[in-house]
Amino acid sequence: MRLVDLAKTLGTEIFVPGGRAVPDLEITGVAPLDAAGAQELSFLTNPRYAAKLAESKAAAVILASPREDFPRPQLLSKNAYATMAKASSLFYVRSHTFKGLSDLAVVHPTAKVDPTATVYPCAFVDAHAVIGPKAIIYPHTFIGERVEIGAGTVVFASVTVMAECKIGRDCLIHAGSVIGGDGFGFAPTRDGIEKIPQVGAVVIGDDCEIGPLNTIDRGAFTDTVIGRGCKFDSQVHIAHGVVMGEYGMIAGGGAIAGSTRIGKRLIMAGHTAVGPSLELGDNITLGPKGGLTRSTDVPGEYMGMPAVPASEWRRQVVALAQLPLLLKKVSALQRQVDALSGALAAPSTAKDAE
Amino acid sequence: MRLVDLAKTLGTEIFVPGGRAVPDLEITGVAPLDAAGAQELSFLTNPRYAAKLAESKAAAVILASPREDFPRPQLLSKNAYATMAKASSLFYVRSHTFKGLSDLAVVHPTAKVDPTATVYPCAFVDAHAVIGPKAIIYPHTFIGERVEIGAGTVVFASVTVMAECKIGRDCLIHAGSVIGGDGFGFAPTRDGIEKIPQVGAVVIGDDCEIGPLNTIDRGAFTDTVIGRGCKFDSQVHIAHGVVMGEYGMIAGGGAIAGSTRIGKRLIMAGHTAVGPSLELGDNITLGPKGGLTRSTDVPGEYMGMPAVPASEWRRQVVALAQLPLLLKKVSALQRQVDALSGALAAPSTAKDAE
Amino acid sequence: MRLVDLAKTLGTEIFVPGGRAVPDLEITGVAPLDAAGAQELSFLTNPRYAAKLAESKAAAVILASPREDFPRPQLLSKNAYATMAKASSLFYVRSHTFKGLSDLAVVHPTAKVDPTATVYPCAFVDAHAVIGPKAIIYPHTFIGERVEIGAGTVVFASVTVMAECKIGRDCLIHAGSVIGGDGFGFAPTRDGIEKIPQVGAVVIGDDCEIGPLNTIDRGAFTDTVIGRGCKFDSQVHIAHGVVMGEYGMIAGGGAIAGSTRIGKRLIMAGHTAVGPSLELGDNITLGPKGGLTRSTDVPGEYMGMPAVPASEWRRQVVALAQLPLLLKKVSALQRQVDALSGALAAPSTAKDAE
Repeated sequence: MRLVDLAKTLGTEIFVPGGRAVPDLEITGVAPLDAAGAQELSFLTNPRYAAKLAESKAAAVILASPREDFPRPQLLSKNAYATMAKASSLFYVRSHTFKGLSDLAVVHPTAKVDPTATVYPCAFVDAHAVIGPKAIIYPHTFIGERVEIGAGTVVFASVTVMAECKIGRDCLIHAGSVIGGDGFGFAPTRDGIEKIPQVGAVVIGDDCEIGPLNTIDRGAFTDTVIGRGCKFDSQVHIAHGVVMGEYGMIAGGGAIAGSTRIGKRLIMAGHTAVGPSLELGDNITLGPKGGLTRSTDVPGEYMGMPAVPASEWRRQVVALAQLPLLLKKVSALQRQVDALSGALAAPSTAKDAE
Repeated sequence: MRLVDLAKTLGTEIFVPGGRAVPDLEITGVAPLDAAGAQELSFLTNPRYAAKLAESKAAAVILASPREDFPRPQLLSKNAYATMAKASSLFYVRSHTFKGLSDLAVVHPTAKVDPTATVYPCAFVDAHAVIGPKAIIYPHTFIGERVEIGAGTVVFASVTVMAECKIGRDCLIHAGSVIGGDGFGFAPTRDGIEKIPQVGAVVIGDDCEIGPLNTIDRGAFTDTVIGRGCKFDSQVHIAHGVVMGEYGMIAGGGAIAGSTRIGKRLIMAGHTAVGPSLELGDNITLGPKGGLTRSTDVPGEYMGMPAVPASEWRRQVVALAQLPLLLKKVSALQRQVDALSGALAAPSTAKDAE
Repeated sequence: MRLVDLAKTLGTEIFVPGGRAVPDLEITGVAPLDAAGAQELSFLTNPRYAAKLAESKAAAVILASPREDFPRPQLLSKNAYATMAKASSLFYVRSHTFKGLSDLAVVHPTAKVDPTATVYPCAFVDAHAVIGPKAIIYPHTFIGERVEIGAGTVVFASVTVMAECKIGRDCLIHAGSVIGGDGFGFAPTRDGIEKIPQVGAVVIGDDCEIGPLNTIDRGAFTDTVIGRGCKFDSQVHIAHGVVMGEYGMIAGGGAIAGSTRIGKRLIMAGHTAVGPSLELGDNITLGPKGGLTRSTDVPGEYMGMPAVPASEWRRQVVALAQLPLLLKKVSALQRQVDALSGALAAPSTAKDAE
């Protein structure tokens, strides 16, 4: 792709240091500063790596603002990170080696597979399932009864989608994930444990990405709902009946407990958890390993277990490091005060004792 | 099912407000207060939702004690939650679209599949495995050498049960779980790391439920044992050689480290962990994200990392929030005391300075 | 195997209490002290179990130093744990019931499967994949395009290895793991979230063990690299672009965030996490549930979240337990000091009041 066309597609201005004209360049891909070749576009999204600019061989670079230490064309973008993502996407085509409906797949006669969809060998598609146009179903997948897979969605190997669940358009469901397993609903009794049947389903919106080995459980009585554009990393767990707003992002090992309702643009860092039956507003961020145990509609970052506003948590962490010394200080102070008290109560006696 | 028959089956008394007669109603299902239709049974198990009683269209409702704000029949149960679970189970039948032994399954000639069992297409059953009566084996499952699957047990899609493991009767093994993978047994040496072969197996009791994407590792020398009636949520991990008593419940992401022995009715909340080689008594509960690092036979709830009795943990959390201020207070106090000391040492000078 | 040959293979000296001759014994296996039969070798690796020595029926025992309370031959080893591992390995042969290339496997015509390799029924091997000599590929595996599986490596059931990834020689990849899923790379924008294509691969060294249900994500621009001899427990997660040195060990649920570079012999306990974009030196150990958020090249054990040197963390834990009482003490002290101040400000009044 020619550099000028690339800049146009990305919606970026081109700056060339020294006021030179924009060269007529063919760009063949995107790479980090130290790996980019003479026909590749690079990017500076983390100021930590600015020193690499001068040495980079890249043909051009995406930057937030023009810099003199890179002598070739610069694509200027306020959100350089997103522009890099978009640029990289333009050059990336995922390879699928199979096309069409394999006769080595097991497809129930009542299932409806769109003629433009792909079903790999070793896939299992159960009764009344619907596979939308251009959807791709990889080997060893289980597409349960009455499941609906939206147009353009890719379901990678060994994914299980249990009965009745619906997945939107243009989603990626990564390998090994289980959508619609039974929620964890049990009532302990005197004699044992009674299971609560999980009769709800899972409904996943359009443009979602479900990472490898996620578990998104079906609801007990109502559906578990994942809003449009949500992106989950590996090993994320969403419990029964959770309703999650659009564009949420959950990093590796994050979990949301049952029946919690969440607004838009939730961000959860790695190993985080959100407690059961909470109500969260929009734009809540939970920092690494945090555990959110209370409902809140105050946007911002939370940290710790139980989670508190991040600034408060940081103060606590700093204070905790001083605590062992504080204990000693207070003991010393107590002794000092006791001595003072003694001196004041009986100053003459105290003086005599000296 | 007629309401009177339902009440009889559930072992509940029927109360009708205003002393009216029990109507002859046909009940078709169970649903939450705000979703139940005029032929459905509902329930109030969380007092938070009591306000929904008056507006509910439900034909009848399960309650812990009679209430005047619901004008129709009330099924009274001290454990309303368990009664709701039981009622819901009565109306729920899990659908399995396939029956019998599929000729698209791969079953070793030495395996024994009961004639009443179901083995779906794409299942793999290895040498000398035994599939009990009415057991159901879903697609993409791996049932290893000499594995035994008990009567009535359902093994969902993509489950792996490694050689020699035994699963009891009427269990549910949810999709993607791995039973009997190698335990994490390694001995570091000067030159590298020596693997300890994991020659024990996994033995799971009757009526257990293993959630989606669980890992239950085989023991190094002895078996890993899961007691009767245990219920595990998604992504639970049980390490090698754990012996767990009956009716334990572990929520999402909970993990028990190697060789730990646990009594009955353990409850672990989400993201919890129990340390290696511990001995735990009956009725231990570990709160969210807690890490239990010491043996205990004192029943009750534990929290934190390292876990302490929950009441103690709560006091620590409250105290920690006050710590940043405490540090300032102690500094101020120190200055105050130093001033006092100075004043007392030379009272006349102090007075002069005033 | 004869005892003398076993000792020779293990490189251990044989000590017989009472100066008796080494008996000519045939050893049939290795077992713990309380389970070993009269022809089995046992071991004492944890002093906690020393009391079991006297009662053990074992033919011989591996010990760190000679003991008089076990009357039969003793194999002396400074690293008794590693010697036990090695001994146990000598008697252990993993059973694989199938051999050769199954015609029930789906193998792309361009894939190269070594004639000495095994591919079970229901395996899927994609275009241009290479399966090395004596490698074993279990059922329901997905071996992606251009993937390379090294000689002697075993890939257990339902493992997914995505396109371009390379696994070394003599590795064990346990059931359900996903190697080479997309890394979690997204750039939020005003309108939604832009995906960063993950074009790197995963490269795993020789002699690695990847536990059940691991996720090892491919890199965004560069490869994710796992060094020789690394051993991972169940449910471990390695994010995109991580580079990990040799002989690292990660227990259940451990996770390393994106782009972190790690030295040799990292040890991570259960439920631990290492933050993104860090640089860690050799011989770092992270204790249970710890979260490492800063780069360090200081070897040793770290604990807590955020992690600090373990000794510091232990002091903090002890101090925190005293904090609720400290708050009360400081309040009392403040009152005492205020009273003293009052007394000192008006000494005569104070004296009058007494």
